[in-house]
Amino acid sequence: MLFMTPMRPAPDFTAMLSDRARHMNASAIREILKVTQQPDVISFAGGLPAPELFPLEEVRRAADTALTKYGPAALQYSTTEGHPPLREWIGQRAGIPAANVQIVTGSQQALDLLGKILISEGDTVLVEAPTYLGALQSFQPYGPSYVQMPTDDGGIDVDALEDILKTTPAKLLYAVPNFQNPTGRTLNAERRRRLVELTAQYGVLVIEDDPYGQLRFSGEAAPSLYELGLEYAGDVNANYVIYCSSFSKTLVPGLRDAWVQAAAPIISKLVQAKQGADLHTPTLNQMIVAELLDEVLPRQIETVKKAYGERAAVMLGHIEKEFPGGVEYTRPEGGMFLWVTLPDTIDSTRMLQRALTRNVAYVPGSPFFALGGGQNTLRLSYSSATPQQIGRGIAALGETIREALD
Amino acid sequence: MLFMTPMRPAPDFTAMLSDRARHMNASAIREILKVTQQPDVISFAGGLPAPELFPLEEVRRAADTALTKYGPAALQYSTTEGHPPLREWIGQRAGIPAANVQIVTGSQQALDLLGKILISEGDTVLVEAPTYLGALQSFQPYGPSYVQMPTDDGGIDVDALEDILKTTPAKLLYAVPNFQNPTGRTLNAERRRRLVELTAQYGVLVIEDDPYGQLRFSGEAAPSLYELGLEYAGDVNANYVIYCSSFSKTLVPGLRDAWVQAAAPIISKLVQAKQGADLHTPTLNQMIVAELLDEVLPRQIETVKKAYGERAAVMLGHIEKEFPGGVEYTRPEGGMFLWVTLPDTIDSTRMLQRALTRNVAYVPGSPFFALGGGQNTLRLSYSSATPQQIGRGIAALGETIREALD
Repeated sequence: MLFMTPMRPAPDFTAMLSDRARHMNASAIREILKVTQQPDVISFAGGLPAPELFPLEEVRRAADTALTKYGPAALQYSTTEGHPPLREWIGQRAGIPAANVQIVTGSQQALDLLGKILISEGDTVLVEAPTYLGALQSFQPYGPSYVQMPTDDGGIDVDALEDILKTTPAKLLYAVPNFQNPTGRTLNAERRRRLVELTAQYGVLVIEDDPYGQLRFSGEAAPSLYELGLEYAGDVNANYVIYCSSFSKTLVPGLRDAWVQAAAPIISKLVQAKQGADLHTPTLNQMIVAELLDEVLPRQIETVKKAYGERAAVMLGHIEKEFPGGVEYTRPEGGMFLWVTLPDTIDSTRMLQRALTRNVAYVPGSPFFALGGGQNTLRLSYSSATPQQIGRGIAALGETIREALD
Repeated sequence: MLFMTPMRPAPDFTAMLSDRARHMNASAIREILKVTQQPDVISFAGGLPAPELFPLEEVRRAADTALTKYGPAALQYSTTEGHPPLREWIGQRAGIPAANVQIVTGSQQALDLLGKILISEGDTVLVEAPTYLGALQSFQPYGPSYVQMPTDDGGIDVDALEDILKTTPAKLLYAVPNFQNPTGRTLNAERRRRLVELTAQYGVLVIEDDPYGQLRFSGEAAPSLYELGLEYAGDVNANYVIYCSSFSKTLVPGLRDAWVQAAAPIISKLVQAKQGADLHTPTLNQMIVAELLDEVLPRQIETVKKAYGERAAVMLGHIEKEFPGGVEYTRPEGGMFLWVTLPDTIDSTRMLQRALTRNVAYVPGSPFFALGGGQNTLRLSYSSATPQQIGRGIAALGETIREALD
């Protein structure tokens, strides 16, 4: 039996997408990264951890050990909440019960599921200006209304935050307090306390996204918003701060293992959301990470910190020599990124074409602003370039900026 | 510096959840499974693949090979679309370009992302009565309005479907045509053609969820809705059918590797949704599966089919002997489940307590109905029980039913 196939109009599937899907866009960075992946280009654009530092042999052994230790259970369906030893370890480290820890498939999933369970269409979400682009992408389908918090070298301007809270009923504040993506800036200790106090007083939930906190290579660590929230609330289940972190930047990103710490009512809804989203994070991957926690992870953190600290210093040294006057930049104490502010007259998106002709790439800053702005800014990643590449790349970028100033 | 901590009211985080979160519920099955996990209980409740059949050593070797072959790239971030060799293989098998294949983190993620990009609040979604509970859970947060399609031993009643389509503008039809979860029923070949024709004519997208199709242990395979849709449309990018399948039931579930085949406009929005949801499916896991495709997968499918065919036959044999008259049940030709319809007077949810006192468990049927019904039905899984357990469990269940009839 064959179908009778008269001429039929081509279906318009795009018109059949949900209203929600219309909020979604291809990531600007992703499109840029495609252009910059030509082999001759020195790319400061990607946010990739340095692959030559990955503990490849340790992961190989951990996979082997997990398969022997757990047998077929390492490959079977497992609980939505996550591998118990992994949750226990995270809970102990944070001084909270394992019941307040949810394992997720990369921090990106934390942001998606938190957006899903917290943001109703039109809810006000406070974000840093600039903020992490991936968070905007996760939240976007849920229809948030963004308000930008001004930032400076000390992170979020908390006086400005207080003014916003006085006039705007907000649901959620999203922040990357340590070595922020994209700026590399860190929220200072005093402002952290103020932020935690203000948000709890105004009844605003805080998502603290902390993938880089362990990668501090200079200066002194401040307590996390989560710790301060716990201190303020006096109860793990009354903490307005939700903490997300990941093994992607400390161990390896490709296993997609990350976690959320939150109050019980939020964890319990997160479990339901995760059940519908992917049932559970891959079993074997969680077991592999659990095998690496005690010995490999601390050693790996030291290795990565040292390397990124050196690379950041090399990049800053070259920037100082090669960039013309009037260009400002951040001096990160950890993480993978620094942020460059060019004179107002330069549009960094337009300048990218010229940079590419000189075989150097970066990410223009404007996509990191939820409500626009930052046309003269750009993000540089130093995590996965050699000192030689950094030298040549920053020289080429310096020339590009000079040319753009002419 | 310490916080001033006067007495403060406990925050009501539940009240802060999104409207969407209120649509979500704990899976009824999940709660039941918790009760049935006591060691003495013979459980026909879970839908777990038989772990003793997992290719454990082959997975171990594949992980080792992938880490050697790809080095650190096996642990690095990778593309959202998925591991190219895996997409190529899937595309070739389906006779479509790899560009029309998207890798996802388990079929559950396919359902979540398709719900996200296709279902606007209030859109009509046609589902089988009964249907796969996990699909309801994925779609639920996106606010669908369900219409139930009646089913019988030949699957969806397509005459009834036509009547529905005549009066109800529907966005989407969701179906599990092969060895359906929960009924074990298969949509017959003639109805498949009719369904594909009808949905295309009425402009309704079809999600064909096919985790079990490869596990046919008797009877003859019918073409997939996707193949028929391709034939009908004459163009991979004009096919109203979206196909989802998985390596969970053929290889192992714990790696969470599954895929979607769809027209380009749908794949391209799916990529954007997946970027926001988890960036990409774990890199190493995709490489492991790719290593197993040529030799291990076909061998494994034969092993699993044989075992499930035997177990189904054992279960059906015992049911015939042990269940009282007036009880009806399906005779699956593949997959993991069969479906029991008790006399109207019995409520299977209430009967579960009695069954548990006899140390046997099942899943009551009513949660599988989007709009209610089926109080006298239940699902039995034969995939992960031994013949001895099946014998004892079915005898105990028979006694329970007899008792309930008294």
